[in-house]
Amino acid sequence: MSVRAGIVVTGTEVLTGRVADENGPWLADRLLDLGVELAHITICGDRPDDLLAQLHFLADTHVDLIITSGGLGPTADDLTVATVAQFCGRELMVDPDLHARITAIIRAWATRRGSDPDVDAISDAIGKQATIPVGAEWVAPTGTAPGVVVAGDGTPTVLVLPGPPRELQAMWPAAVATTAVRRAITGHAEYRQQTLRMYGVVEAELAESLRAAEHDVDGFDALEITTCQRRGEVEMVTRFEPSSAAANDAVVALLTDQYTDRIFSTDGATVDHQVAALLAGKQVATAESCTAGLVAARLTDLAGSSAYVAGGVVAYADEVKVRLLGVDPALIATHGAVSEPVAEAMARGARERFDADIAVSTSGIAGPGGGTRDKPVGTVCFGIALADGTTRAVTRRIPGDRADVRDRSTTVALHLLRRALLGNRG
Amino acid sequence: MSVRAGIVVTGTEVLTGRVADENGPWLADRLLDLGVELAHITICGDRPDDLLAQLHFLADTHVDLIITSGGLGPTADDLTVATVAQFCGRELMVDPDLHARITAIIRAWATRRGSDPDVDAISDAIGKQATIPVGAEWVAPTGTAPGVVVAGDGTPTVLVLPGPPRELQAMWPAAVATTAVRRAITGHAEYRQQTLRMYGVVEAELAESLRAAEHDVDGFDALEITTCQRRGEVEMVTRFEPSSAAANDAVVALLTDQYTDRIFSTDGATVDHQVAALLAGKQVATAESCTAGLVAARLTDLAGSSAYVAGGVVAYADEVKVRLLGVDPALIATHGAVSEPVAEAMARGARERFDADIAVSTSGIAGPGGGTRDKPVGTVCFGIALADGTTRAVTRRIPGDRADVRDRSTTVALHLLRRALLGNRG
Repeated sequence: MSVRAGIVVTGTEVLTGRVADENGPWLADRLLDLGVELAHITICGDRPDDLLAQLHFLADTHVDLIITSGGLGPTADDLTVATVAQFCGRELMVDPDLHARITAIIRAWATRRGSDPDVDAISDAIGKQATIPVGAEWVAPTGTAPGVVVAGDGTPTVLVLPGPPRELQAMWPAAVATTAVRRAITGHAEYRQQTLRMYGVVEAELAESLRAAEHDVDGFDALEITTCQRRGEVEMVTRFEPSSAAANDAVVALLTDQYTDRIFSTDGATVDHQVAALLAGKQVATAESCTAGLVAARLTDLAGSSAYVAGGVVAYADEVKVRLLGVDPALIATHGAVSEPVAEAMARGARERFDADIAVSTSGIAGPGGGTRDKPVGTVCFGIALADGTTRAVTRRIPGDRADVRDRSTTVALHLLRRALLGNRG
Repeated sequence: MSVRAGIVVTGTEVLTGRVADENGPWLADRLLDLGVELAHITICGDRPDDLLAQLHFLADTHVDLIITSGGLGPTADDLTVATVAQFCGRELMVDPDLHARITAIIRAWATRRGSDPDVDAISDAIGKQATIPVGAEWVAPTGTAPGVVVAGDGTPTVLVLPGPPRELQAMWPAAVATTAVRRAITGHAEYRQQTLRMYGVVEAELAESLRAAEHDVDGFDALEITTCQRRGEVEMVTRFEPSSAAANDAVVALLTDQYTDRIFSTDGATVDHQVAALLAGKQVATAESCTAGLVAARLTDLAGSSAYVAGGVVAYADEVKVRLLGVDPALIATHGAVSEPVAEAMARGARERFDADIAVSTSGIAGPGGGTRDKPVGTVCFGIALADGTTRAVTRRIPGDRADVRDRSTTVALHLLRRALLGNRG
């Protein structure tokens, strides 16, 4: 039987949507790495009763480990440690070692910032953060909030971590190494996972293929398959025990037959990483109108991208397309700024100005205004220019609102780069 | 007593962190607009038992309304409607009107894409999506998945919505207008909310101010205050009933005294919207190295930004800084690319080339490599150039990983623009 865990994310700012939670997804990945099955993520505000209800819910579902994030700050709305102590039936105490450690951290900060290390003025805040349930282990803080581990006894072990993602992530290795967490997660089953990524496939089409595979592949039922359409791609993740590897291989073979090169990744590699690898030894440039920097930003998301990203021009205004990219104003007058000839000219201009091996361009109508009958909102033209002087262009109608259109356009641009770099002109 | 709601987000791709949930936060905002108190968000994978456990948990906490998102697709892993029917003790049936409607939608799609409208081939998928609990209301689909509402009877009313954010959001008004949902959310209390945004304030400092306010302000306890540090700003949201408006005003007055212009917004307006308003009638340009397009992309996030964003240059390579922005190579040789003189020259070059009223530049070390003793990872120089020929620069050390440094740098750039546009050269 596999070990199961639940995650409780606390914070009114997360519950009410003012802050997007990063910790649930990140912890989910780490649990997967450890072979622990994640059953539930729950989110509550800074209200002790709601937090307590969620802790009891997870205990009732018999998870082995509960991880909480958030609610460890110095402000009065941060109540996680006290609530977990209540849940575990433990008293609270100030841990003197921890108190000394937090004080030292704050002194060091104040010194570095050149301000007066007036630790006394914030002694309440320190005392609060140094308070843990009796008998709990603590994990050294990265910021000022320590982690806390309360070992379960027929009940789930509870691991309390701070909310800021950077602190939580930095403290994770030490948290997993604590005696109580190690005990809670031993005896897990081994899982494998394979990710297929597809471009140009609709999820409903894939659903029918999987229905067919269910009939044709022995052991299909032992595969946990999830599919998800996002950012213009379909991602399919299969999770299985090692004994089901043959069934997984059979499904992958069936899909590869049917979709051929629309499956662009069978090892989980993203188009971003594939493009990065294909750009080794080359230079890429961008010329962006509607995406206005998002393609350049996406290309430089990856560390080491300075080796192959020369730069780009954000050409939002027409005169910028002319002046900085050398687009012939007659082209704009004849075809409009959102047109394949202009997209090609933008790409050519960027490639030449940055002396790059390849350039990609975007020109489109992100909305909400600016659409016409012929070129409705979501119409985006893309250009590619290569070192041999050739160019090509495509037009896509991208669904969604302004943010969707801009975001999905970056995916189209990356796939165009990928195909061009693979030498596929189709 | 206020009406309380719970949200259940389904989908293994969300639970395991492969897709960030957008629906919980969006629905949270809508509930707030309606005066409904959100108590819990729970996330589960595509496993009926876990979903059922979460529905029972929310029912046990006596929420009035449960909203689910996701699990309505055509694939076999989409099980929400069947599980909700089981939870509500209802049989399932194919709704003929709904079936006809979904079939028509798919025919129209196929026709528009120029492909053969072979509806028979996907009849299983249509039949599945047209199946709802007996006696339930349905909400017309935006994609192919309808919404479903099952009225509660001493139990919570359940509103089932699809997972794709665009579909869910488009269907929301019709969902809220259904008889069952309207009944569930009547009788709510009225809440007000005020948001303060601060820049240059540390959360621990604010915590001490609030402890002081707790002593000094009558009625402080009736305010629900949450604070949150993110993207280099601190956001403080206070939620209160109308009778506590005076207490809220007193807290705001205390904080305004203490922090003066470090509180840049008392009406919830973001720095993005403030900068947009200040740019009315002006043109802005960008010159970006480490942020590589993120500042331009952020400035153009807002609809209508084409009126004031001229464009920008992503100058990742040094020779691009020289060639496209006119930075003197001697400056780079003397001070390094990450330096205030180079940042100023980049801003000046962008302002001139784009004929803009103001330009902002970034040059920094986003990491993980490239740091030195004098200029560690996170060192970012920013430049501002104005139409009168003056320039200024600042250097910041920004904590976090590559993505944090790049993202927070955009916040610094926006605040520099804001201050420069307000005529504050300090």
